[in-house]
Amino acid sequence: MTNTPITEVPAHLRAAVDAAKQKVADLHAELPRWELVVWTAGNVSERVRDDRSPDGTGDLLVIKPSGLSYDDITAEAMVVCDLEGNLVEGDRAPSSDTAAHAYVYAHMPEVGGVVHTHSTYATAWAARGEEIPCVLTMMADEFGGPVPVGPFAIIGDDSIGRGIVETLRGSRSKAVLMQNHGPFTIGGDAKAAVKAAVLCEEVARAVHVSCQLGEPLPIAQEHVDALYDRYQNVYGQR
Amino acid sequence: MTNTPITEVPAHLRAAVDAAKQKVADLHAELPRWELVVWTAGNVSERVRDDRSPDGTGDLLVIKPSGLSYDDITAEAMVVCDLEGNLVEGDRAPSSDTAAHAYVYAHMPEVGGVVHTHSTYATAWAARGEEIPCVLTMMADEFGGPVPVGPFAIIGDDSIGRGIVETLRGSRSKAVLMQNHGPFTIGGDAKAAVKAAVLCEEVARAVHVSCQLGEPLPIAQEHVDALYDRYQNVYGQR
Amino acid sequence: MTNTPITEVPAHLRAAVDAAKQKVADLHAELPRWELVVWTAGNVSERVRDDRSPDGTGDLLVIKPSGLSYDDITAEAMVVCDLEGNLVEGDRAPSSDTAAHAYVYAHMPEVGGVVHTHSTYATAWAARGEEIPCVLTMMADEFGGPVPVGPFAIIGDDSIGRGIVETLRGSRSKAVLMQNHGPFTIGGDAKAAVKAAVLCEEVARAVHVSCQLGEPLPIAQEHVDALYDRYQNVYGQR
Amino acid sequence: MTNTPITEVPAHLRAAVDAAKQKVADLHAELPRWELVVWTAGNVSERVRDDRSPDGTGDLLVIKPSGLSYDDITAEAMVVCDLEGNLVEGDRAPSSDTAAHAYVYAHMPEVGGVVHTHSTYATAWAARGEEIPCVLTMMADEFGGPVPVGPFAIIGDDSIGRGIVETLRGSRSKAVLMQNHGPFTIGGDAKAAVKAAVLCEEVARAVHVSCQLGEPLPIAQEHVDALYDRYQNVYGQR
Repeated sequence: MTNTPITEVPAHLRAAVDAAKQKVADLHAELPRWELVVWTAGNVSERVRDDRSPDGTGDLLVIKPSGLSYDDITAEAMVVCDLEGNLVEGDRAPSSDTAAHAYVYAHMPEVGGVVHTHSTYATAWAARGEEIPCVLTMMADEFGGPVPVGPFAIIGDDSIGRGIVETLRGSRSKAVLMQNHGPFTIGGDAKAAVKAAVLCEEVARAVHVSCQLGEPLPIAQEHVDALYDRYQNVYGQR
Repeated sequence: MTNTPITEVPAHLRAAVDAAKQKVADLHAELPRWELVVWTAGNVSERVRDDRSPDGTGDLLVIKPSGLSYDDITAEAMVVCDLEGNLVEGDRAPSSDTAAHAYVYAHMPEVGGVVHTHSTYATAWAARGEEIPCVLTMMADEFGGPVPVGPFAIIGDDSIGRGIVETLRGSRSKAVLMQNHGPFTIGGDAKAAVKAAVLCEEVARAVHVSCQLGEPLPIAQEHVDALYDRYQNVYGQR
Repeated sequence: MTNTPITEVPAHLRAAVDAAKQKVADLHAELPRWELVVWTAGNVSERVRDDRSPDGTGDLLVIKPSGLSYDDITAEAMVVCDLEGNLVEGDRAPSSDTAAHAYVYAHMPEVGGVVHTHSTYATAWAARGEEIPCVLTMMADEFGGPVPVGPFAIIGDDSIGRGIVETLRGSRSKAVLMQNHGPFTIGGDAKAAVKAAVLCEEVARAVHVSCQLGEPLPIAQEHVDALYDRYQNVYGQR
Repeated sequence: MTNTPITEVPAHLRAAVDAAKQKVADLHAELPRWELVVWTAGNVSERVRDDRSPDGTGDLLVIKPSGLSYDDITAEAMVVCDLEGNLVEGDRAPSSDTAAHAYVYAHMPEVGGVVHTHSTYATAWAARGEEIPCVLTMMADEFGGPVPVGPFAIIGDDSIGRGIVETLRGSRSKAVLMQNHGPFTIGGDAKAAVKAAVLCEEVARAVHVSCQLGEPLPIAQEHVDALYDRYQNVYGQR
């Protein structure tokens, strides 16, 4: 995917980009609210689809700048990048995790939102390189099985992005625990990815606590399948 | 209990239903306040008794819609169902746990409120299928003994409701830990059920923490009985 | 200590009682703020000294009514009792722990404030009947050694009060963990007792966490003594 | 370093001192916000450099008074001391940890901010005298390796300050866990030291949680080095 670089937001995407900036700014408030991040850690991004570019190479992503305090997040402060992670619009350097977000959008066309945090319990599983076993009905609902572990990968090239994509492609799980690092979650849009980040930490914590005093009881695969199927198709408002 | 379906709120219950909607909406705020839920999980319901229907088949319940954010809860947004879980009034689909709430009201006439959460520590005991032993005086006060475990049950039929009723009928406990799922609590009204949900998590947490470093000391049955009796009859304002 | 019952607040104590009501009401807000209580649990009291009664039998105490929500606490709602726990002034029944507070005031003339909570970590130590070992300099500062355990005692007579007094009399510690129940703390006034309650939970939690992964290092007795002496005499504003 | 005592803030430092008072006052709010302190514990200081005193002996520090409630912190309430810890300006006695802060400034000229807390998880590692192993990429980023332990030291002379300096001098870590006591962190200014305090507790907690259920996977030294180098030079806005 090497293309003519995108040097500014095309006019036909202006409204969509501005709407995404507002949405992404608002959703960042959910990360400290649910205690998934401290200080400036963590980030939320959303894809802006370019309908004139059916192969997706014209798509953009909106993300938080690097090192910005959660107190200073506004729609205007958000930055826009292409799907190779290059800055297209914005006064600040994009989040240092932008390359990983961009790689996911470029290689998983169905993904519309990505979230990264260092939430405590998910990160603790990640530090041991252990998947979270599916022992809660809410896990079967949201993740359809265990939350898997991705490889150890160093920031700076596309190895984090590749690790996320290789782990989540073909998986029911919307969350991956990158080894020694922390969770990345995906969704149809940024809000769904934030929901997955919140629930990932919730199940990481509840299963951790349960394992502290013994062995949680497994849920039979047929029940996991039934719960997942129902939740994806029936829960919420239709 | 198969009856003529109730297709609208009867005029003589209008005022009681509206009052219950306000009360149930307000009580939902207690769930995130005491950190019993994340995102849209959890729900509170209250029974509206129909005095013209002495067998209870005309009673209604007020509950939160499915997947509604805690930021968007208003009295108007609450929905009304009959005791078979069918929607009687409201613009949205009722909580996916409505069938369980309805089953409890239909089979436990003394119950006026039901609460369901995935609160972390109670859910952790539930994942192991272990009851919480009665080793705190506040447990003896509120629950009169251990908090029991209910069966594994799949959402979608009345098996969750049956599991709750079979576990709590004849028990002093106002809380049941549904295996691999989470706690349900009951009370004379919705506020009492919320109180039981708050205290269930509190004792689940304190006993968990105590068990992490050794064995909590048991409380003699005669003392459990004396504490329970006193608390039910003396505590609070008469 | 059987005396003519006090049937109303004497005129010469009116101003002091009203001031104590405001102070006690305000201090109750510290208990949920520092997450020491849930729902209506916990209470703060303060002694009002009667200078015309040198033996202390004319002293009063101000405390929260039984079962009052933390949202509804006002100076006016506070109740006044004598040191046998009898209601002297107020529209509501006093806290069900009033007898314990009263017993402490009656038998420890130097105590001006008492606090009771079910704070999680302190209660967890209490459930095992284990004192908190003095392995933190902040424990040596505030408590001058371990936080001791008091006996199992049933509410309803003066056995809780006796257990507190027998454990704390002659001890440096301002906190006692009543077995299977929770902490009581004392101080020169209500604010000092609240501070002790906050620090009791803090050290209960930090020492618990430390013990989870091994054995905390002891602090030599001479250092405990030096720290305690300094903190009692140098810390804060003179 | 024995000099003519500084008896008042020199006129040429007035503006810098006032700015530091505001900054230090504001930064104190971060300690309870991130749950690093309870009651009046903890303190933040910042160095005010005196450019007319190239050896640093004319530098001042701004710090919180001893025992001041976080509710009462204002720029005006902050106090000014010289680098021997003597009060230069202010109505109240300086924090009882001032001698330790002053020693660090006097012996580490590159340090512009110091923070001390009793944050729970960092203090728990300190109570066992165990360093926090570097098993998270965010630790490699911020601390460049393990968070080390400093010696047991008694307040009252310069032994705490010496312990901090001997442990951190020549280390990549901006945090030291003083044995049986708690963390001290340093930074180029007070904000950087607060950030280090927040991240120190975050990694102390996540690594603790990870260790509870097994052994975290180590990160190879070359990866620790690469992460540290990148974070110090690339992260944030340039």
